[in-house]
Amino acid sequence: MEQPAKTSLSDRIRLFPLMDRIVSADSAAALIKDGMVVGMSGFTRAGDAKAVPLAIARRANEHPMQITLITGASLGKDVDRVLTEAHVLKKRMPFQSDPTLRAAINLGEVMFVDQHLSETVEHLRSGQLGPMDYAIIEAAAITKEGGIVPTTSVGNSTSFATLAKKLIIEINLAQPLQLEGLHDIYVPTKRPTRDPIPIIACNGRIGMPYMRVDPDKIAAIVITEQSDSAATLDVPGPDTRAIADHLISFFVEETSKGRLNLMANPLQVGIGNISNAVLSGLAAGPFDHMLMYSEVLQDSTFALLDSGKLAFASASSMTLSEEYAQRVLGNLAKYKDRLVLRPQEISNHPEVIRRLGIIAINTALEFDIYGNVNSTHINGTDMVNGIGGSGDFARNAYLSIFVAKSLAKDGAISAVVPMVSHVDHTEHDVDVLVTENGLADLRGLAPRERAITIIAKCVHPLYREQLADYFDRALLRGGHTPHILDEALSWHVRRKETGTMLSGSLV
Amino acid sequence: MEQPAKTSLSDRIRLFPLMDRIVSADSAAALIKDGMVVGMSGFTRAGDAKAVPLAIARRANEHPMQITLITGASLGKDVDRVLTEAHVLKKRMPFQSDPTLRAAINLGEVMFVDQHLSETVEHLRSGQLGPMDYAIIEAAAITKEGGIVPTTSVGNSTSFATLAKKLIIEINLAQPLQLEGLHDIYVPTKRPTRDPIPIIACNGRIGMPYMRVDPDKIAAIVITEQSDSAATLDVPGPDTRAIADHLISFFVEETSKGRLNLMANPLQVGIGNISNAVLSGLAAGPFDHMLMYSEVLQDSTFALLDSGKLAFASASSMTLSEEYAQRVLGNLAKYKDRLVLRPQEISNHPEVIRRLGIIAINTALEFDIYGNVNSTHINGTDMVNGIGGSGDFARNAYLSIFVAKSLAKDGAISAVVPMVSHVDHTEHDVDVLVTENGLADLRGLAPRERAITIIAKCVHPLYREQLADYFDRALLRGGHTPHILDEALSWHVRRKETGTMLSGSLV
Repeated sequence: MEQPAKTSLSDRIRLFPLMDRIVSADSAAALIKDGMVVGMSGFTRAGDAKAVPLAIARRANEHPMQITLITGASLGKDVDRVLTEAHVLKKRMPFQSDPTLRAAINLGEVMFVDQHLSETVEHLRSGQLGPMDYAIIEAAAITKEGGIVPTTSVGNSTSFATLAKKLIIEINLAQPLQLEGLHDIYVPTKRPTRDPIPIIACNGRIGMPYMRVDPDKIAAIVITEQSDSAATLDVPGPDTRAIADHLISFFVEETSKGRLNLMANPLQVGIGNISNAVLSGLAAGPFDHMLMYSEVLQDSTFALLDSGKLAFASASSMTLSEEYAQRVLGNLAKYKDRLVLRPQEISNHPEVIRRLGIIAINTALEFDIYGNVNSTHINGTDMVNGIGGSGDFARNAYLSIFVAKSLAKDGAISAVVPMVSHVDHTEHDVDVLVTENGLADLRGLAPRERAITIIAKCVHPLYREQLADYFDRALLRGGHTPHILDEALSWHVRRKETGTMLSGSLV
Repeated sequence: MEQPAKTSLSDRIRLFPLMDRIVSADSAAALIKDGMVVGMSGFTRAGDAKAVPLAIARRANEHPMQITLITGASLGKDVDRVLTEAHVLKKRMPFQSDPTLRAAINLGEVMFVDQHLSETVEHLRSGQLGPMDYAIIEAAAITKEGGIVPTTSVGNSTSFATLAKKLIIEINLAQPLQLEGLHDIYVPTKRPTRDPIPIIACNGRIGMPYMRVDPDKIAAIVITEQSDSAATLDVPGPDTRAIADHLISFFVEETSKGRLNLMANPLQVGIGNISNAVLSGLAAGPFDHMLMYSEVLQDSTFALLDSGKLAFASASSMTLSEEYAQRVLGNLAKYKDRLVLRPQEISNHPEVIRRLGIIAINTALEFDIYGNVNSTHINGTDMVNGIGGSGDFARNAYLSIFVAKSLAKDGAISAVVPMVSHVDHTEHDVDVLVTENGLADLRGLAPRERAITIIAKCVHPLYREQLADYFDRALLRGGHTPHILDEALSWHVRRKETGTMLSGSLV
């Protein structure tokens, strides 16, 4: 049995002079001034600073102030909601998933910069963003050398800690001290003087177990004791199971052709219900000793590790349900030699992704007959969450796969459209598309061939004829990528005007 | 003085048993059969196979046949035209720039697969494209070991030579033997077992001066004596000079802020008149000891090398005018320590581009108020040339810049539009946009902020009010990226219907 998490403060803050810097969250929050650029730990609701951000919001309700907030990815604990309601956020990057913040972004109240998750710290490091005034980082411990031990995510924290003028550390006693040793902290140097990143396999360890910082920069330490926000996932339904089945059949076929080896090509799987279903499908599938080199690990990853189907998992964050949080965080010793958490710059680095031969599986909001993918914008205008790491992976993967349910809103919306209303991934970066109806293998196909395959395999039968009709009429106009420009976005317009993309409803 | 090029065959074919494989172009062409996948050397009209492709076309006029043709990039010597006219091309990838082939692509007669130039050989190597039956490669010489010495481009030839079942080599006596030693041939291994690419500076040499092949695979050798097709470029006019001036002022400002160092951040400059003007501008600018890590070198690169402003240039190809071809190819010794030609997979490799901190300057066909760029499609449907390497560079650059003249067709077309009709580069990959009217620095800006900047700086005054009006009305609809979907592509439709994008002409 593993030891229970130690909560003695001297185990957590081992550079004793730092004990004097312990303050309340409210005192720490007072350090943050109007106009500052602030970095915070946190990646998909894991490892986020939990007390100081809320204290900043409380304070802003009394003394209005605005900041630029940069994180790893999305935050938990309603931090983005509370900060939005307190009108603290002037600018926010590079990702979010909070409904209140999303509404403020779409109203133009918060300026949101949607970035590839590997890129944010490159911009900061080169001085093209920033300078960063404060970084607020959750830690499991501070070592004797002043090293910061992250918790359930690494995200952008390492670079924030290096680049920010001052630091506020939240020591979270609810995060087990056994997290120490799980992380592999490596930060590329400033360009243009940079060595290759020496990862040549997903289990490669190339760095330190903690982030090196100058202890003098630590302006305040706040003690917290709160677990991460729990992830909630739907049990796979018939549609997501069908998507998983199509994908696994494809993997079996590719393996038999010698073009794929799931014991060597690591998987990247985006977050969400479809991805979770794919991983659940793989748990029941024929592949053993699989590998993951991903950005976020969900429950299903740990189910695969437990069953022995997955040999190793690398990511920047773990986002778990309450059940799995107990199972995993209470038994970290069991996983430590098969798990590593890295800075998101490394988990998502084009260099490493291209090298490792990754199978990237990400979710599309919609895609078009030529294979362009919209991951972010409803009707081309309204932001959902952000592009996240999907671009980092899709562009550089060995095999770039996008999955979607073919229908939304009870059939009023088709995920397969003549032209996407917003492009996040161009056809150049999309090899395979999967819906519950089937799988379109687009490798080596020209646009006209892609359209035929996508219409045959992916679109829902409800919309198949309507989509084929568009393509047939577009063909009469000609072009490498045939379109009828004044009709290309008409499905979206029709949905807004009539409630459905179905053209029959117009009659 | 440099020696004149040797033309003795024994200097060119040093593995003497291969002498027996010398045949006519027609005999070599007869090896190519209907349905084959054929790779050819050639990158932007440099180093292309010149005799066998035309012999294939002649033969096809008698005995109809079709092939899949894969090259480095575009070909010279009218090869693509002649092959198109002989209906030889069933499928063509990854790039072209021939008007006849372009027309056939847009009619749907040739299936064109438009690819990132770094990716083609990855797909071949993994078996996801191919297998390749023949590779037809121009060489300056064959070494005693059977190594193939490329000529004025490397392109995809190395991987084609490795992966094709059989080879046809064109020994071109018009290419100087002094090209030997200019190339740095390095090919990454098959994924997922791959080491880092060890280039850490643009002048790094990591490979061999020739391509290693199995001499037994050489099915035929053809002797030719024809220079590359000459490049033609316009003398910079007021618009392209203004673009160059805006860019150089920006570089000066970034340098003074310590965010840029043109002695350390290498330049990548796309091909064409605007790029040529930018390089000409830099020749007269304040920067010395500049570096290039690019895909193609044009005349202006050599003018910079001659003047001493450029310290080193790395690329995959050199595309020269007749004047510069004489000047450069007749004096290669002068350039050899400041010049290297690499496989396009390496010149364009995301890993290396990201590492070196490259300033990427590429040409847009059109861009929109949010900074999405169309590099390839007129009216969203008709292919011009292809995405080429612009995506490899723009995504991974230190600074990603796109340039365009703000007007085309005497003002009937605005290059700055509400929504691009086709997306090759999403707003995530575009840092700076430049037209003759000004420079929009989009770094760290949200979409609404990007729109204000682009409208203020880039659009031509003729269209400014019309574009601002669109944006203002889109703002009333709201959204992170405000658009009026049923009007977003109306400028393109109007141009088709009325001859101009100007809305006044409707009245």
